[in-house]
Amino acid sequence: MPNFLNNKKTFLSKLDKSKKGDIDEKVIPLLKIINSKDNYYTTSSCSGRIYLWSGSGKKNECHWLKVSHELIDEKFFELKDTSGLVWLRLEDIILHICCKDLDSANKLLELSRRIYKKSCILSASNKVIVEIHGSEFIEMSLYKDGKLLFSGEIEWLVGLVNSRMKKIWERMEKYQKQFA
Amino acid sequence: MPNFLNNKKTFLSKLDKSKKGDIDEKVIPLLKIINSKDNYYTTSSCSGRIYLWSGSGKKNECHWLKVSHELIDEKFFELKDTSGLVWLRLEDIILHICCKDLDSANKLLELSRRIYKKSCILSASNKVIVEIHGSEFIEMSLYKDGKLLFSGEIEWLVGLVNSRMKKIWERMEKYQKQFA
Repeated sequence: MPNFLNNKKTFLSKLDKSKKGDIDEKVIPLLKIINSKDNYYTTSSCSGRIYLWSGSGKKNECHWLKVSHELIDEKFFELKDTSGLVWLRLEDIILHICCKDLDSANKLLELSRRIYKKSCILSASNKVIVEIHGSEFIEMSLYKDGKLLFSGEIEWLVGLVNSRMKKIWERMEKYQKQFA
Repeated sequence: MPNFLNNKKTFLSKLDKSKKGDIDEKVIPLLKIINSKDNYYTTSSCSGRIYLWSGSGKKNECHWLKVSHELIDEKFFELKDTSGLVWLRLEDIILHICCKDLDSANKLLELSRRIYKKSCILSASNKVIVEIHGSEFIEMSLYKDGKLLFSGEIEWLVGLVNSRMKKIWERMEKYQKQFA
């Protein structure tokens, strides 16, 4: 794969030109470390997020109502429109890392699985892409036709969601140290 | 990989000797089709499941209270002990398929992604293993210290969970047809 470093340069220079807000800040130190390695560069990333959505759940029928890459408070659950069905979802970190070759991919997988057991190879043909994926998630129906479906204390739910978010970040920090 | 067919025979003969209850029945026709192909054999499978669990969520601290590979009814949510925190989880199909070589794996990925976009390669070194993974999931807190945390109609929640289970099965049937 002689063009790997050229592809890396081209890809990362495009990334720099894109709007700053496109990458959530929490994941930037990790991206910098990975991109400093000759055999790897990141092609997409999300450090984890909490969001409210409505719709059928299919890709084109999913309306994002609110999203946070930070800890939330009770206000996060306040919506002007709670008609239909509104879901609360929490997603863990996801990273796509382009690797120089299959050997580099296997090394990255071995290192990554110490922290992220579900890491895998997305593509091994044209480009070699490894996906790093945490396994925290929440998916619960929150409002139906204007009615809140959760009968516990909202403060407790906020704490629950935030505790999972903190776990995601702690694991990301541990993962970052694997590259040191 | 000259030993592939031998490994396949050995693995599948062990499987036949194991208890029948070990594999949920819904997925058996699909396994048979995949195992009839020279370049593939399945090493583990779950057609999707609904379960109640308590504990911290870590692998060794997760107590399964009830599990169903079938549609559920309201009785599924009845528990003798609802102390602590009890979660409701729905997981989609997951299959691990050992492939003869990387080329077979890439072909399988291409076919599988028509239905399961998140399919990936788990291992590309010693054995080549493809993971097929659906993306339906539910993860919601259901009881806390004896109190039900869901304030909607239980009948509706049962329908919601079952509708996701049916989607999982429909997609599995579509996937099966890809091999025809």
